[in-house]
Amino acid sequence: MGETITIAGAGLAGSLLSIYLARRGFDVHLIERRDDMRRHKLSAGRSINLALANRGLRALDAVGLGDSVRPLLITMKGRMLHENDQLHLQPYGKNDQEVIYSVSRPGLNRLLLDTAEAHGVRISFNQTLCHVDVDSATITVRDNVSGDQYQRECHPLIATDGSGSLTRRTLAFSPGATSAEEFLEHGYKELTIPADANGDHRIEKHALHIWPRGGFMLIALPNLDGSFTVTLFMPREGETSFASLDSHDAVTDFFTRTFHDALELMPDLATEFFANPTGRMVTVRCKPWYRRDKVLLLGDAAHAIVPFHGQGMNCAFEDCLVFDRLLAGESTHAVDWRSVFALFQAQRLDNANAIADLALENYIVMRESVRDPRFHLKKALSWELEKRFPKAFIPRYSMVMFHHIPYATAQSRGVIQEQLLEELIGDNDTLDHVDYASAKTLIDTRLGNVPESA
Amino acid sequence: MGETITIAGAGLAGSLLSIYLARRGFDVHLIERRDDMRRHKLSAGRSINLALANRGLRALDAVGLGDSVRPLLITMKGRMLHENDQLHLQPYGKNDQEVIYSVSRPGLNRLLLDTAEAHGVRISFNQTLCHVDVDSATITVRDNVSGDQYQRECHPLIATDGSGSLTRRTLAFSPGATSAEEFLEHGYKELTIPADANGDHRIEKHALHIWPRGGFMLIALPNLDGSFTVTLFMPREGETSFASLDSHDAVTDFFTRTFHDALELMPDLATEFFANPTGRMVTVRCKPWYRRDKVLLLGDAAHAIVPFHGQGMNCAFEDCLVFDRLLAGESTHAVDWRSVFALFQAQRLDNANAIADLALENYIVMRESVRDPRFHLKKALSWELEKRFPKAFIPRYSMVMFHHIPYATAQSRGVIQEQLLEELIGDNDTLDHVDYASAKTLIDTRLGNVPESA
Repeated sequence: MGETITIAGAGLAGSLLSIYLARRGFDVHLIERRDDMRRHKLSAGRSINLALANRGLRALDAVGLGDSVRPLLITMKGRMLHENDQLHLQPYGKNDQEVIYSVSRPGLNRLLLDTAEAHGVRISFNQTLCHVDVDSATITVRDNVSGDQYQRECHPLIATDGSGSLTRRTLAFSPGATSAEEFLEHGYKELTIPADANGDHRIEKHALHIWPRGGFMLIALPNLDGSFTVTLFMPREGETSFASLDSHDAVTDFFTRTFHDALELMPDLATEFFANPTGRMVTVRCKPWYRRDKVLLLGDAAHAIVPFHGQGMNCAFEDCLVFDRLLAGESTHAVDWRSVFALFQAQRLDNANAIADLALENYIVMRESVRDPRFHLKKALSWELEKRFPKAFIPRYSMVMFHHIPYATAQSRGVIQEQLLEELIGDNDTLDHVDYASAKTLIDTRLGNVPESA
Repeated sequence: MGETITIAGAGLAGSLLSIYLARRGFDVHLIERRDDMRRHKLSAGRSINLALANRGLRALDAVGLGDSVRPLLITMKGRMLHENDQLHLQPYGKNDQEVIYSVSRPGLNRLLLDTAEAHGVRISFNQTLCHVDVDSATITVRDNVSGDQYQRECHPLIATDGSGSLTRRTLAFSPGATSAEEFLEHGYKELTIPADANGDHRIEKHALHIWPRGGFMLIALPNLDGSFTVTLFMPREGETSFASLDSHDAVTDFFTRTFHDALELMPDLATEFFANPTGRMVTVRCKPWYRRDKVLLLGDAAHAIVPFHGQGMNCAFEDCLVFDRLLAGESTHAVDWRSVFALFQAQRLDNANAIADLALENYIVMRESVRDPRFHLKKALSWELEKRFPKAFIPRYSMVMFHHIPYATAQSRGVIQEQLLEELIGDNDTLDHVDYASAKTLIDTRLGNVPESA
């Protein structure tokens, strides 16, 4: 066994990565600022369920976690839109295989921690990273229980310390480094639709519910216990904003006016609203992601994105898979970490920037475009084109959610596809007139087949 | 008198701003982390002289400091290139008025602090800004002498706390905020050419000396005491870099090979090299620069740039002038700070981003392009065109250094002008063939006259 790899941050990315590395025979030490979540109920206010999609599942399957994780999942077949007192289900994909899953963040994180320990990963909780010397990979850590502070040299340090990563902020001073953070105008707040008296879901279980309202929206993802975790997204400041909802009455009024069918499902709304924090959402873009053979950023620490494409965790899990493949055939005693880090960045950075863009765009889709008939017309045509030309035309959403096509490819093909859809539909409001022979010519000319991908 | 304006940071920008505000009748409190520089010799390693140009001088003149500052200045008429054991002076401008000035940073800062106090500005030194609540403009400050920490609400807070601004980093969490930092691959180190035995300058006094070497360069600016402050710019890491120059022998060898004529002038080179820190250079771009009527960033705190156009201080001084004009006619009791801040950002942000780009570009000019005959040919043609069409064609360097044309205008006109120069010169290596009649047509068509500016 070679030297010990230190992973800073035992969230979803860090704990899955530790499993990958342990399976390759590396000695792995995982340190985490928080207490062991397996010993406690989770705290309110953190996103307590997440959308798991194909990319994430593949990365879990690759370490043999498929069977353990599937009982934690709830299939979501589409978006259930709540508008004008009507419900409308928009399927996500073209068939029953093209779905996404709701999963409990702590449930999944616990599974990953248990699995990591079973693979021999050493995990130290309550360890706060106070300082990182990126030139020597020496970290200064405070033990939050004893209060003691100590230093350790890592071989190497892999930082999975999330969107506020101290390691990234330190790395950002390196020669040639660029680092940009962009905080969304909108914030979020988590609320609950409790289970009914029988412990069952009070609205359709197998859907991601959306109350799209243009300037803001409410969404709900199902939990195994019959409840839904609801998230309100709206401006942090301004006329109708988290800042303006400053009393129980204001909150109740707002929900009565805007989300009255959801309000009926949330008996504890006003209390929860003030008990739970208002979260911020940030997009992080930085470069480089590594320092020589010493330090690497992975997951949100390198490329935090907003949650609207449900790809933050999926992207981080795909990071782990890609990173693992780069180690194939390397002896644990003699890894050329610098090359591995450089290749990792080369494979992932453009893709991370692409999904960052797509996630920002998808907020508009969720809160606004889903209400537009033309959006649905284009979606219908997308599926028709996919049915007819499955090697060339895959709806952009599907490329991101149901395939492993690199995000950057999905993004660039998506731009061309959007233009094609606009041209093929023209000013019409049905698809009756679409000429699929000329559609094929256009697709062949401008798009070609999807390149084979890993 | 209205409420007290707090300015955080008594560097060049903060101290000049305090004078402007005091002259308008505001009560101003200036706080500064360092000790009073007037009580001490300056510490090594900080840039101890700077290039002052037209924009900065105008802002000093506007508060009546012209007469006091001029004795501190040394005229620099052009770049003195040191290459192949030859000296070559490239004038900066088309005549004796188009020059820039070397000025001592501490000398100028002392003058500004004295003047601020004379205008009734209260200055507190040894006060470290520990925390900023940007919503209430409440600052937490530690008195470094007593060790006491205290809070204060500001009305408003203007942060001139430099490129590493804590205030900016806090503001960056605001809704919709974006903040990007870009650290140059290259670092810098300050060295000295001492005066000769008679206290005179050992090389031409009225020039900015450059030893351009492609991948790196040495520059020297004159001081009043007969010495020059020399700055070495080179990569922070890599084969030939600050990291590789890790012994006295390595430094001496490097200078012998690369800058042997400069080496002769620097008897204490190796000692100084290791006594002085290696500086980093950062470009900061962020938005917004303000928080409601509470907090404003100004100077480097809002828009730090690299030093290669000699415009960091000039731009910050122009900030002060613009800010002051926005207060014209306002009662000190009833300023609509939010509007003033918004207008300030609207007038300055694009210009700050433009000079950030130009400063990065000018590094290539200084270390590389000045060695290229074509660069000089274009410069000669620029001057000829300016002579013939002075209302339309002003060389870009001149627009930045000798005029008050907004930086963004200088940048955009500079792109068109560069294209014109390329076309007019074509493949020729003299200007003999240039057809000034068709040049005039091109200029009229593509460029037009320089817009009148403030």
